[in-house]
Amino acid sequence: MSSWGKVIVDAPDWVDELAVPGAVFSEEQRMPFVIELARRNVVEQTGGPFGAAIFETDSGRLIAPGVNRVVPIAISFAHAEITAIGLANQQLGVFDLGGEGLPLMELVASTEPCALCLGATVWSGVRKLVTGARDEDARAIGFDEGPKVADWQGALASRGIEVVVDVMRTEAAAVLDLYAAGGAPIYNGRNDA
Amino acid sequence: MSSWGKVIVDAPDWVDELAVPGAVFSEEQRMPFVIELARRNVVEQTGGPFGAAIFETDSGRLIAPGVNRVVPIAISFAHAEITAIGLANQQLGVFDLGGEGLPLMELVASTEPCALCLGATVWSGVRKLVTGARDEDARAIGFDEGPKVADWQGALASRGIEVVVDVMRTEAAAVLDLYAAGGAPIYNGRNDA
Repeated sequence: MSSWGKVIVDAPDWVDELAVPGAVFSEEQRMPFVIELARRNVVEQTGGPFGAAIFETDSGRLIAPGVNRVVPIAISFAHAEITAIGLANQQLGVFDLGGEGLPLMELVASTEPCALCLGATVWSGVRKLVTGARDEDARAIGFDEGPKVADWQGALASRGIEVVVDVMRTEAAAVLDLYAAGGAPIYNGRNDA
Repeated sequence: MSSWGKVIVDAPDWVDELAVPGAVFSEEQRMPFVIELARRNVVEQTGGPFGAAIFETDSGRLIAPGVNRVVPIAISFAHAEITAIGLANQQLGVFDLGGEGLPLMELVASTEPCALCLGATVWSGVRKLVTGARDEDARAIGFDEGPKVADWQGALASRGIEVVVDVMRTEAAAVLDLYAAGGAPIYNGRNDA
């Protein structure tokens, strides 16, 4: 290791209570799991109100879960999707989840992606993105989605990534409201700019 | 730590030969340093042809260097800017490099940002972005910049982030050409899609 240290992004210990490696989720179980990750992350005060996970699309095997960890670990890009993608890369030992010989993978996220996570979704190699709350639900409680292309769904589709939105939107948005009601920090780059 | 492991992003050991914590760089020394990070990363085969660093704008103190680490560490988002931002967060123990009480910080990068790094720049809290090669120089050797807003410079400016482009563009682009000439992998999400 260089003198500059290392960046460590992990999932909180309580995630093991919801799923351990080897767990399999039906299509209908995936979004509820991801919303529960987000909710539990608020309740446990281990980060922002966002959950995500990488699954094998066909088998339903959970490759990696993720939650927002920005404030507790003080890493600005530790969004739920980034955590899930990084842990999936680490679990499988590959930087491309869409690489040859691998089953199709999907990213399921409790809220539509911010600018950072939109880019990360493309680079991850997943072939499908499933989202719950809309970006406008996140903005409604003060979160900023960043400089994101207007037609982000089209941008993903044109790169061979199927997009499914509004899955349990109400339940997913309720976690955002739970967080806001608790008075926890609505951080972003420069909400005072 | 949960059963899901952890994501570790670091700088290669050779970075210490170029700078250790406490190093100070004049404005004119910053881009040459970042380009040398990129070049050395190619020569040492420790990642893609991209370098970046976070500096205190006024004092010139180097807060953290970064290079692209995607292929060697198998983490899809380990771009140079992400590595530099994460190590800067870790060095200072803060998720917001633009937070109260901190001196103004800038991100100096050997190439204009991809979609992921554009988002990460906003969330990092830096107040200035300085770039060398253009995104079209990266595209010229086959790298994809992802779904990025067309007026990315305006998007940053509107968020209080000053943008300075084309600093030593020729020298920075030469490192991209060096990488391409070596036949190293031009990876991205789906360049075959």
